[in-house]
Amino acid sequence: MTTPASNQPGRRQLANAIRFLAADAVQQANSGHPGMPMGMADIAEVLWNDYLRHNPKNPRWFNRDRFILSNGHGSMLQYALLHLSGYDLPMEELKRFRQLHSKTAGHPERDETPGVETTTGPLGQGFANAVGFALAEKLLAQRYNRPEFDIVDHRTWVFMGDGCLMEGISHEAASLAGTWGLGKLICFWDDNHISIDGNTDGWFTDDTPARFEAYGWHVVRDVDGHDPDSIKAGIDAALAQSDKPTLICCRTIIGFGSPNKAGKESSHGAALGKDELEATRKALDWPYGPFEIPQEIYDGWRAGNTGVVREDQWNTLFDKYARHFADEAAELSRRSHGELPEGFSAAADAFIAKLQAEGQTIASRKASQLSIEAFAPQLPEMVGGSADLAHSNLTLWKASKSVASDDADANYVYYGVREFAMSAISNGLALHGGFLPFDATFLVFSDYARNAVRMSALIPAHVIHVYTHDSIGLGEDGPTHQPVEHLASLRYIPNNDVWRPCDAVESAVSWKAAIERRSGPSCLVFSRQNLQHQTRSDEQVAAIARGGYVLKDSNGTPEIILLATGSEVGLAMEAAAQLGDKVRVVSMPSTDVFDRQSAEYRESVLPKAVRKRVAVEAAIADFWGKYVGLDGAVVGMHSFGASAPADELYKHFGITVEAVVEAARSLG
Amino acid sequence: MTTPASNQPGRRQLANAIRFLAADAVQQANSGHPGMPMGMADIAEVLWNDYLRHNPKNPRWFNRDRFILSNGHGSMLQYALLHLSGYDLPMEELKRFRQLHSKTAGHPERDETPGVETTTGPLGQGFANAVGFALAEKLLAQRYNRPEFDIVDHRTWVFMGDGCLMEGISHEAASLAGTWGLGKLICFWDDNHISIDGNTDGWFTDDTPARFEAYGWHVVRDVDGHDPDSIKAGIDAALAQSDKPTLICCRTIIGFGSPNKAGKESSHGAALGKDELEATRKALDWPYGPFEIPQEIYDGWRAGNTGVVREDQWNTLFDKYARHFADEAAELSRRSHGELPEGFSAAADAFIAKLQAEGQTIASRKASQLSIEAFAPQLPEMVGGSADLAHSNLTLWKASKSVASDDADANYVYYGVREFAMSAISNGLALHGGFLPFDATFLVFSDYARNAVRMSALIPAHVIHVYTHDSIGLGEDGPTHQPVEHLASLRYIPNNDVWRPCDAVESAVSWKAAIERRSGPSCLVFSRQNLQHQTRSDEQVAAIARGGYVLKDSNGTPEIILLATGSEVGLAMEAAAQLGDKVRVVSMPSTDVFDRQSAEYRESVLPKAVRKRVAVEAAIADFWGKYVGLDGAVVGMHSFGASAPADELYKHFGITVEAVVEAARSLG
Repeated sequence: MTTPASNQPGRRQLANAIRFLAADAVQQANSGHPGMPMGMADIAEVLWNDYLRHNPKNPRWFNRDRFILSNGHGSMLQYALLHLSGYDLPMEELKRFRQLHSKTAGHPERDETPGVETTTGPLGQGFANAVGFALAEKLLAQRYNRPEFDIVDHRTWVFMGDGCLMEGISHEAASLAGTWGLGKLICFWDDNHISIDGNTDGWFTDDTPARFEAYGWHVVRDVDGHDPDSIKAGIDAALAQSDKPTLICCRTIIGFGSPNKAGKESSHGAALGKDELEATRKALDWPYGPFEIPQEIYDGWRAGNTGVVREDQWNTLFDKYARHFADEAAELSRRSHGELPEGFSAAADAFIAKLQAEGQTIASRKASQLSIEAFAPQLPEMVGGSADLAHSNLTLWKASKSVASDDADANYVYYGVREFAMSAISNGLALHGGFLPFDATFLVFSDYARNAVRMSALIPAHVIHVYTHDSIGLGEDGPTHQPVEHLASLRYIPNNDVWRPCDAVESAVSWKAAIERRSGPSCLVFSRQNLQHQTRSDEQVAAIARGGYVLKDSNGTPEIILLATGSEVGLAMEAAAQLGDKVRVVSMPSTDVFDRQSAEYRESVLPKAVRKRVAVEAAIADFWGKYVGLDGAVVGMHSFGASAPADELYKHFGITVEAVVEAARSLG
Repeated sequence: MTTPASNQPGRRQLANAIRFLAADAVQQANSGHPGMPMGMADIAEVLWNDYLRHNPKNPRWFNRDRFILSNGHGSMLQYALLHLSGYDLPMEELKRFRQLHSKTAGHPERDETPGVETTTGPLGQGFANAVGFALAEKLLAQRYNRPEFDIVDHRTWVFMGDGCLMEGISHEAASLAGTWGLGKLICFWDDNHISIDGNTDGWFTDDTPARFEAYGWHVVRDVDGHDPDSIKAGIDAALAQSDKPTLICCRTIIGFGSPNKAGKESSHGAALGKDELEATRKALDWPYGPFEIPQEIYDGWRAGNTGVVREDQWNTLFDKYARHFADEAAELSRRSHGELPEGFSAAADAFIAKLQAEGQTIASRKASQLSIEAFAPQLPEMVGGSADLAHSNLTLWKASKSVASDDADANYVYYGVREFAMSAISNGLALHGGFLPFDATFLVFSDYARNAVRMSALIPAHVIHVYTHDSIGLGEDGPTHQPVEHLASLRYIPNNDVWRPCDAVESAVSWKAAIERRSGPSCLVFSRQNLQHQTRSDEQVAAIARGGYVLKDSNGTPEIILLATGSEVGLAMEAAAQLGDKVRVVSMPSTDVFDRQSAEYRESVLPKAVRKRVAVEAAIADFWGKYVGLDGAVVGMHSFGASAPADELYKHFGITVEAVVEAARSLG
């Protein structure tokens, strides 16, 4: 440890400021996790004061280092760091830790707190997000950097705990980071031997360093997480190589400083208690009261911060870059602001109109590929991928180039069979800035990624999840591969837009909507099998974007309304033809989007007075109760699927034109 | 390779029988995966003919070795093995591969095919199930075996591919298997360097042997998966040690024998084609037609099978055991048949009646723990656990003893932070026989385990998933930890019974129902916060088991019906008190169970004519459309939660008595 001048606080006292801000905030809230911030405070102090390149005055400076707290329950560590180093997070907010409308939520939330790069808490996902951040940096650097212009050049730093490492997603994400050689990704393992149930000896006996070496990582063993020199040596070792991601294994004591709770799970997830806090103050020689930080401590945290200067230097460099490489600079700037290229919307509409005119009967997964092929050339920010199902999901396009390469145009991720990390990496790519990621798997395996999809919506991240093979229509692979409950389950994730288009035209509209939707993710759900083209007027084509619209109207007020999505729209249209001209057919590619329309529009499509309603979808029937009410009927699934050719399955499960006709006729 | 006598087929020809049954069945179905069976045929032949202890005449012999095909897309390998070795799977079934109502589904399904131990296909889960099977064997052995009576003594053999190993669940499951030292678990890695997207060099660069050694596994490297001697040496090495699970790394060629598709992804997931099949017949010197197996091949597969003799010997041993250890034998026999102890139901009812009389106001998670405490002593088959949240989920009971020990009464699993493997291991424990497993995490993290929960329902497995902290009621941890869509999403999984009890009494009833439900899983969803006790008549107590019932009736025909679950039932009761005596309150702890009741019962609870209905649940509102129809209202969630004390969140999100009263009054 460096010896401080007499009037300057030592490193330990700088770190203690984190410890007490954390412990006091948890005490005040009587809720939270003091143990981790107290355990990782020394590491955080060294990293933030000696290495992290950031500008507290501009948390969104594009070339900043990214810091990600994967063990997000230690949120007070991050809030303390942000406060101490001068971000716009005043002490009043720390005092309101975990209270309604504060900027200091229980777990770090990107949209709530300046300086928080991603929302963490669900274990392992912050780490996987970080792999996405580091991949984003690599891809932008190889596209935009030029000799003497390292415009994109920053690191991704991660704090992670035993919990993150036990989660399966850590395996998937670490494996990919190793394969990609993400040399600017540096992770600190908080090796404290404690998880919530106690000493991890009973359930976490991995040789973690050996495990990460098996992934091709650079591993720094045996760092003393309470010794700044040891921490600095570990970081320096990480910086000394650039081909591999680094795991720095830091032996720490959870709740460091607490005489009676340090090293114990009792410090993990509850306030220390007033007496123990007092004892900790004595033990750590911290004479200050709760939320009291003397000026010299602030000075110690802020004196060395070169963030403003760094950003100024970078801005100067970027201006020069822009003079030499005007197109690249403009494109990078556009991408970093999440803006679409001028003319995108009009070009997309033209493509949609062309599809409507062509009238192809193709699988919607094929239509999805056509849409990617049409849109990707305009969108260098688009980076796609699939969890080892490229030729089933149809996610490759002509210009696809693997991100494992050094190619400037690298834009395609071979994720392997890793759905969860894939989706969390997509979130990271999106949150870094400069990318519009999409990923893909079979709809049924959205389950494997489920909480990352939820996080796309919660953070929110502008991500597109492509899910093909959307029903029993996938046929012979059988019930393990046939989604039933997934459409409804994805629709119920707040702020998640699910689309299930009925033909090539709706497919293209869904892609356009997902690309233009900056406020959150979209799930695009496509069929394996061919879907028949539907004829539409221009007005109907325009109405697709409203999520639900009248595809075929009745003669006068409808007596019966048939609602359908995706592959069942064709079925509904045939049933309507048999039922006569008093039947309206509503195509509802996105219930989420439809539900956001004005009450007037919704009433115009589904007049409340019309109670004879039949919904048709090859998915769990109950979902449609909301639309058909107590007097309607649903032709859908009530069980798992089965293994057989698709046509036979539709008959077997009674999702047929005849069934729709019968259901409609049987309504009171 | 052993040299066969001139009139006996060599090992390669025995293996070729698998190859052609697989390739021909896929050709006939024009659907399926020939590559893996052709690649693993030699390994399978050696294992099944020289090592596997099983009785084809009794696929459910209790002490059989378990064989699990984790790479379940190679289902024809298993069907060929079962057919060739004499299980009740006639050639006619193989010819009907992937057809409706055949016993040869696209992926192996336990309930469809004799000899299939678990349903596989979703990658990595078969492996995790197998860890559960091996744990079951260990636990039964340590409880029931006595000197000279190794009544429980069998191995679990697993085939797994690159896909299984890429999935995160493989990390979680392998880590636990290593920690537990499951020496009778032996896994074959089909190391063929090919996954669906092609050569795995681009996305799977792990040093897998080193990785498994880091988990504490015994790893046998460099086995030639097409050389029987090399395979035998690998297996012998595995058998030579008993303290660690073994991974046998077998280098294989996918589609072995196909002149133009071997070693390529084109052999993975599609029929070889007629010409290529013909060329393969020539290359492998297989002169027989499709589905033609000469008698000498059958003889080669069946001559050495000692299964009937082995089972007879075991039966003799067990009879002797039963004379010496009558109680143990009776208990093991009862457990292995999945039967509950006599008197369980009556004792449970008495406990429920006692709770009703006591009228405790406690958190339902606490009530859950009381139920476990009451029921577990009667159920030695109960094995519980939590994903590192024992003191939050309240899953420990007085007699809990870690399964990591050698204790005869070991019954509690410290799963660490591994929700997905936990749930899949539960499935394995249940499917092995002899166990009634429960597992636990926060409701929001059911997401991490989602597809394993689905598999509990699909297989089906008699498993209980306990989910606590069931709503915004968990408070300060914030939206990452607050479930919104999860209740509805779990309810939509077919054959999954979800319970959300409103007080201690309903909690105990839900536990009883879950324990008695042999046909599938139950999810028991409990609150963090206290829930007020509800008074009930004996008839009402009995009606809880019907999933929904009238908790407070109206004076005469109801004008308004309030439906609620869990923590919101108390709210609904208070609202009803304000709304006057024309209001009925329905408590609906399980919509799944309620929906299975007779139409008459459902009508008696929710008369169709009563349209003024308000549902109240601190979860996604749309789910309740099915029950309240187009004229009702829902007081529920429409967004993610937030970080704040629970009481404030209920007010903030408008889930209050006042909101219910207002919603009811506003109905037309």
